[in-house]
Amino acid sequence: MEVEVLQERLAKALSVVSRVAASTKAGLPILSNVLLRAEDKQLTLTATNLELATVEYVNAKIIKNGTITVPARLLADFISNLPKETIKLSVDGEKLTVAAGKYKSTINGILADDFPELPTIDEKSAVAFKIPADIFKEAINQVIIASSNDTTRPALTGVFFNTFEGALYIAATDGYRLADRKFVDDVKSEIKAIVPTPALREVLSSITDSVEDVEVMIIDTQIQFRIGEVEVTSKLIDASFPDYRQLIPKDTNAKAELDKAELVRMTKVAALFARESGGSVVCEAKKAENSFGVSAVASEVGENSATMEAKVSDDGKVTLNSRYLLDALNVMAENEVEFNFSGKISPVVIRNIKNDNYTHIIMPLKS
Amino acid sequence: MEVEVLQERLAKALSVVSRVAASTKAGLPILSNVLLRAEDKQLTLTATNLELATVEYVNAKIIKNGTITVPARLLADFISNLPKETIKLSVDGEKLTVAAGKYKSTINGILADDFPELPTIDEKSAVAFKIPADIFKEAINQVIIASSNDTTRPALTGVFFNTFEGALYIAATDGYRLADRKFVDDVKSEIKAIVPTPALREVLSSITDSVEDVEVMIIDTQIQFRIGEVEVTSKLIDASFPDYRQLIPKDTNAKAELDKAELVRMTKVAALFARESGGSVVCEAKKAENSFGVSAVASEVGENSATMEAKVSDDGKVTLNSRYLLDALNVMAENEVEFNFSGKISPVVIRNIKNDNYTHIIMPLKS
Repeated sequence: MEVEVLQERLAKALSVVSRVAASTKAGLPILSNVLLRAEDKQLTLTATNLELATVEYVNAKIIKNGTITVPARLLADFISNLPKETIKLSVDGEKLTVAAGKYKSTINGILADDFPELPTIDEKSAVAFKIPADIFKEAINQVIIASSNDTTRPALTGVFFNTFEGALYIAATDGYRLADRKFVDDVKSEIKAIVPTPALREVLSSITDSVEDVEVMIIDTQIQFRIGEVEVTSKLIDASFPDYRQLIPKDTNAKAELDKAELVRMTKVAALFARESGGSVVCEAKKAENSFGVSAVASEVGENSATMEAKVSDDGKVTLNSRYLLDALNVMAENEVEFNFSGKISPVVIRNIKNDNYTHIIMPLKS
Repeated sequence: MEVEVLQERLAKALSVVSRVAASTKAGLPILSNVLLRAEDKQLTLTATNLELATVEYVNAKIIKNGTITVPARLLADFISNLPKETIKLSVDGEKLTVAAGKYKSTINGILADDFPELPTIDEKSAVAFKIPADIFKEAINQVIIASSNDTTRPALTGVFFNTFEGALYIAATDGYRLADRKFVDDVKSEIKAIVPTPALREVLSSITDSVEDVEVMIIDTQIQFRIGEVEVTSKLIDASFPDYRQLIPKDTNAKAELDKAELVRMTKVAALFARESGGSVVCEAKKAENSFGVSAVASEVGENSATMEAKVSDDGKVTLNSRYLLDALNVMAENEVEFNFSGKISPVVIRNIKNDNYTHIIMPLKS
């Protein structure tokens, strides 16, 4: 292999693939390596942790085809510290030589033959769609926060891509909250796929300002995302997602229309006084006073209360985990939100006022 | 106590004093409190960890004198989350009530009588001097990096303020490196004081853009810094500092004049290949080639070399800990530095090319 490539391009690509190489939990040393392949007039960088693979295509001058794998972290750190010049990569057996100006290094690698084979997606049998990058980011960020870390219930550790009445929805729940977002208005085929959150986080990290669309392809057991020059491929989670639509209340007794920034501020302040009680805060709507308040239950450190003016349809009171409420408010797209609730034990439903494409549900705490 | 104060002023002051309250290692709950005192037309905030005390004077409208102590972290977080309005503080027994617009909180405190008495500095018997804030910052940052964390040798955990031939110098050493900086050109009295690094870090953190000078007062066992509205008082370390001047080589065999940015880059790159050997790198000057190179010793991961053009007075080679070299380069004031050395076992002396007010010495590693 012999390749010439600009330092900035190579450094950028290595910063992407070295994330995946660093995430490996399996003990195989080669998984912390990046695979370099010079072929068909392009340089390809690949890393995998066996669950997830990421491939990046880099514009380069290919003088001689070839492959090698070398430690991803070392190569990424080394290249990122070099001056902005042309870098020459050449391979001799299991050694990669990197030369740039007065810098010359030889890195001991492992032959590419030992690198795990990557999953290939058969494009013909795949369900494919394309989403503008900004919508992809907004929607995934809205849903991913409700996914679980509890590996004993694998289905809940991912995001459920599912079609319903002709549209594609994405949803996640950890049993305490649930997020559901309409993702694509019109999808021809039926989709039921649970996508691991690490793959989605990797896609989010790969969306740079220059990326316009994210292409998604799903087959039986795998999903692939194309983000500009980056391809992220992941296994799907082999489990069945709960029938979450029945958990979304159709009606609620009381509705409050609230200024999001003010609600965030009131919740943060109340949470400071609620540390002993695990951050539980009381939300209370008073119709006669047109007010909505958030307070901490009386605690050892002191007492706190705050109210704001709000359009309120009925009186009501509910206790929530302040962290869940803040997580939800943090991803709401609009400045005004709807807070729907029905007494102390029914789930709270939070939506944007204008666009109802996103539903966030939080289970109340006992009070 | 009854006080009105602007949210921004109070939030800024609390962010300073709550750092010290949070640093307490003693088990006394009151040390994590901030003492509020309304008296003589000003509001004073105080925190101490018994080693170190910080006091901040806040512009406020005092309606009624009084004192209270409340948890510093809680009050700081609470005030920083409030809107930018006037805040009313009032005390009733052991409770502090904070009201701002529609926010109202009562924080349970502890009576001020239980707060530890603060050291007072007798200004008449103190040695006092004043230093422009930017010079104070530069000099302390240059020296503090060479101080030790090893509490078994208390003298080395501080910075030694000492007069020599009419000038004040500050110095620190951890046994592997030594930093010495001329601090004040002309000082009347003799000073020998070891100042704990946490106090100096606290002073550095308190220097904001609006601060012009730092006033320093030293008496037998204590030092006080005045930084705008903030006062930091600390005990001195009761130990004797080694006679460090004899450790600074008077002459060295070889001198290289080097571009600092290029030396940093070469050292960082070599360090990547030197992880197995604890980051040790070889610096080599070659007179015939007018070159200076930094390389990692051959390691399992690979080999590396880089050289730059440099004015070099003689051949020479020395092995250094790359982290120490980077720490030193990071605080050099000029873009060009002098690298003075005499073979493999003598200390390396690094100085700025033009101004010789700063001397940094690194002991070589065996190679």
